[in-house]
Amino acid sequence: MADAGQRLANGLRRIDFVTDPSRYRHWKLNIDGKIATLILDVDEAGGLFEGYDLKLNSYDLGVDIELADAFERIRFEHPEVRVVLLRSGKPRVFCAGANIRMLAGASHTHKVNFCKFTNETRNAIEDASTASGLRTICVINGTAAGGGYELALAADHIILVDDGSSSVSLPELPLLAVLPGTGGLTRITDKRKVRRDRADFFCTTEEGIKGKRAVEWRLVDEVTPNSQLEALIAQRAREFSGDAEETAAASGIVLAPLKRNITADRRDYDNVSVAFDRARRIATITLREPGARCPASADEMVNQGASFWPLQIARELDDAILDIRLNEIDIAAILFKSEGDPQFVLDYDIFLDLHRRHWLAREIRLKWKRVLKRIDLTSRSLVALVEPGSCFAGTLAEIVFAADRSYMLIGKQEGDNRPPAAIMLGAVNLSGSLAMSNGLDRLSTRFLGEPKIHNNVRQAIGQALDAEAAEALGLVTFALDDIDWDDEIRLFLEARASFSPDSLTGLEANLRFGGPETMETKIFARLSAWQNWIFQRPNATGEAGALSRYGSGRKPEFDTKRV
Amino acid sequence: MADAGQRLANGLRRIDFVTDPSRYRHWKLNIDGKIATLILDVDEAGGLFEGYDLKLNSYDLGVDIELADAFERIRFEHPEVRVVLLRSGKPRVFCAGANIRMLAGASHTHKVNFCKFTNETRNAIEDASTASGLRTICVINGTAAGGGYELALAADHIILVDDGSSSVSLPELPLLAVLPGTGGLTRITDKRKVRRDRADFFCTTEEGIKGKRAVEWRLVDEVTPNSQLEALIAQRAREFSGDAEETAAASGIVLAPLKRNITADRRDYDNVSVAFDRARRIATITLREPGARCPASADEMVNQGASFWPLQIARELDDAILDIRLNEIDIAAILFKSEGDPQFVLDYDIFLDLHRRHWLAREIRLKWKRVLKRIDLTSRSLVALVEPGSCFAGTLAEIVFAADRSYMLIGKQEGDNRPPAAIMLGAVNLSGSLAMSNGLDRLSTRFLGEPKIHNNVRQAIGQALDAEAAEALGLVTFALDDIDWDDEIRLFLEARASFSPDSLTGLEANLRFGGPETMETKIFARLSAWQNWIFQRPNATGEAGALSRYGSGRKPEFDTKRV
Repeated sequence: MADAGQRLANGLRRIDFVTDPSRYRHWKLNIDGKIATLILDVDEAGGLFEGYDLKLNSYDLGVDIELADAFERIRFEHPEVRVVLLRSGKPRVFCAGANIRMLAGASHTHKVNFCKFTNETRNAIEDASTASGLRTICVINGTAAGGGYELALAADHIILVDDGSSSVSLPELPLLAVLPGTGGLTRITDKRKVRRDRADFFCTTEEGIKGKRAVEWRLVDEVTPNSQLEALIAQRAREFSGDAEETAAASGIVLAPLKRNITADRRDYDNVSVAFDRARRIATITLREPGARCPASADEMVNQGASFWPLQIARELDDAILDIRLNEIDIAAILFKSEGDPQFVLDYDIFLDLHRRHWLAREIRLKWKRVLKRIDLTSRSLVALVEPGSCFAGTLAEIVFAADRSYMLIGKQEGDNRPPAAIMLGAVNLSGSLAMSNGLDRLSTRFLGEPKIHNNVRQAIGQALDAEAAEALGLVTFALDDIDWDDEIRLFLEARASFSPDSLTGLEANLRFGGPETMETKIFARLSAWQNWIFQRPNATGEAGALSRYGSGRKPEFDTKRV
Repeated sequence: MADAGQRLANGLRRIDFVTDPSRYRHWKLNIDGKIATLILDVDEAGGLFEGYDLKLNSYDLGVDIELADAFERIRFEHPEVRVVLLRSGKPRVFCAGANIRMLAGASHTHKVNFCKFTNETRNAIEDASTASGLRTICVINGTAAGGGYELALAADHIILVDDGSSSVSLPELPLLAVLPGTGGLTRITDKRKVRRDRADFFCTTEEGIKGKRAVEWRLVDEVTPNSQLEALIAQRAREFSGDAEETAAASGIVLAPLKRNITADRRDYDNVSVAFDRARRIATITLREPGARCPASADEMVNQGASFWPLQIARELDDAILDIRLNEIDIAAILFKSEGDPQFVLDYDIFLDLHRRHWLAREIRLKWKRVLKRIDLTSRSLVALVEPGSCFAGTLAEIVFAADRSYMLIGKQEGDNRPPAAIMLGAVNLSGSLAMSNGLDRLSTRFLGEPKIHNNVRQAIGQALDAEAAEALGLVTFALDDIDWDDEIRLFLEARASFSPDSLTGLEANLRFGGPETMETKIFARLSAWQNWIFQRPNATGEAGALSRYGSGRKPEFDTKRV
């Protein structure tokens, strides 16, 4: 059950990430040819939890789940769309950011998970731009404060109305004693490259900045009088949608609702099952291969649509991970298993490689890239068990490389008729198309210090690697024989569950991301880590802290010691 | 006064960073030609604070102050030394890391400051290698646990004795529920490039790793039986000291003790003064130029030695900053001022440029680089006030660019006969020789988004830039006239002091380091930020947390929720 420090509204017991436009309460999605308009018009009474109203277009996780869904749908259901206009449906306010009463009442765990998901959503908006050429223009007619401006920062282009009152601001520090943690600080320094002393001024000024100064300081791209706003938007939409990449011929697929069977200790999807062992604090996710060969043509892929195996299982896995993150916070480790014929999995990868210029094949790869990054960023111990009859090949093998530890069984266990465990690599594992947040393949990150092994790994593409071969190549942590298997893994999982969850979170966040840093890793490491620290500090969340006292009429009391 | 949650030993009221080999209690420094041997032999009873013994060569800040001093002295006093051997003076133990009882009893503030200083010391060891060719070989004959192994990780080469018991380990997580936060996690992934799943195993295993596996896993560079240890050390020392860069001719200078006058509200050095305004929580650091032109020759520089102005003021400033960090934790902002003729300052920079191949000139630049980085990493609001009669030129101008905000006075104030404020840039500001932790000059970081302005800045080298010119070039945040000056700055400082110190720490840590990340920035951002978070979590530092209960015989109790 969700642990948010608050009760879910409407008697719900779990946070659900599945939605669709017909159920949106906070966003309106209109499509007009190449232009989509996403209008934020938050339903005040539509909070995910009890106890607060979503005033002034402020948001909680529920609002962001719809936003994430809208961008997924535009990419899959409306591939003809080239530009998204992000606008407010309310007068005088674009968005007031994350709802403060929600934040003040939320548990530490929920705050951290909420920030992580909203960060992932904004990264996905940027990914749609860089990887799919789907540009976002943000129109600010009114105030964009805190998370509202951070949402704007995810856009390619920000238009601010110059009317003497419309403004952008990051007032988190002076008002709430926390950081603009949804990428705000990182995007102003590293994306918009605002001069650091101006950024300091901006982030310590409640009222924000408006008009020409906002342009001069690089906080927005242009300002316009209200009278010329609509004409300017139309012009920019035309420019950003371009004529070059005309994909009018492409018609999208329908992202049908996921079929799920949810019981107390299981989640069953068509290709993914999750089983909870609550006593041992373990969730086991089993991934199943398609059971059938992949289609013969791109048209057939489009016809299969949401039930095309690589897409369906990606969506199912994504939902399963989010469910564990937000609803199963006592789970210490996620065990990944798989079942099926690895060659089938690899065939799908080869199919996607072959059709990589087809919009749908491209979008499915990009979806997998995002899902795998979501796994990298999930603060549970990730363990892959590579057993007889498993199908960790190509894209699915990435899960082995995403894991903190992987164990592979040598040979078979008594009475097991399934083929011995094999890992199969595909071109996809070394092509960069499933790169981590640090910009490198998981295998490149894994072998940063061992270029020779990295080369040997390349030679092994397409081979069925048994446990000893996989261990020798460094693809798994340990290859174990039948005699040791059960005990070793049991002891490891018991030890894991005995450690402080916080130190594991910190350890994994450091060990998973060797090598270069990017804006994305900066957001999740530097910015999020400091924000999480601040969320623990009495000056923010203590009884007399700024976040707790906001709106109470009482001033916060600070311990003035600098750390 | 130091706030450590503990009482300083021997009735001291301040932590003092000034020491010299004759006063070392924990290290022995022996010089033999090109080889220096630094022997760690911790005096159990020599703890900086009351209440713990430094058993098993464990360390506290006092031990690290001596280590930092030893490396400074080798570089300045013994430039002939090419190799440092880092060894233990105790049998069966190299170093047990940071003293746990000290950590358990220390305030959050002290823990964070302690980790920061020890990190800076290890970075300085690496800087000595990359920038000065002073290689460090670490000899582990016994156990190197936690911070002990992290110290080894700072070396260029690690030799481990293969005797069935000597081992390296990072047991912080299983034993104490904290991270190996003195660079450990970052150096194993990014310096030694240990495979991430092996790193996971290593960091969750109390007993550590020994023998050949330690080499195979890249944790050490070689193992040797005890019988061959001394021969191997001698051989490696010869190899690392090389013949190429023979600097036998160079004889060092003496780092004479700093002259300081310490009173309740002031610290006065020859060229630096610190004045505390405790009511307003401000420390004002005033830097003074030499008052005399620089020497005519390198020999004269050597003769002046520690009193050569650029070196002396660097040491004074370093001491002043450390004093504020550790002893004055209630200070919210540091105001930097300067007094003197900017041309004098620039002349010294030109002198150092001219003699950049001279060992002493090189070391002085590198010292400044370290001091300026120390300022970048100081978690107080940094403010530069550029006033009439000031000398922010060249190296000293870096302090303006290190500041979170800078204010410059236009013209003069009534009755002031000093020349109007001017900033002068030198080649040093754009040469990379004073680069920040992110590897870029402060000006390059500042103008990441504005290459044109960056170019204009280059044109301005050597000119006396008045307030309006400096503001137009983006070198200062605001140029203010006489009428606004006092009020604006007073209001700004009042506002600053009213904010939550923690949120400022987080804000500044994010805004100061735009652009690329390096191993150093990774250590101070990702690793330190997570460690600080963990230091706040009850699972580590709560009453039933692992750090608090260590050694009590009682097992820690953990909240099992994953965040």
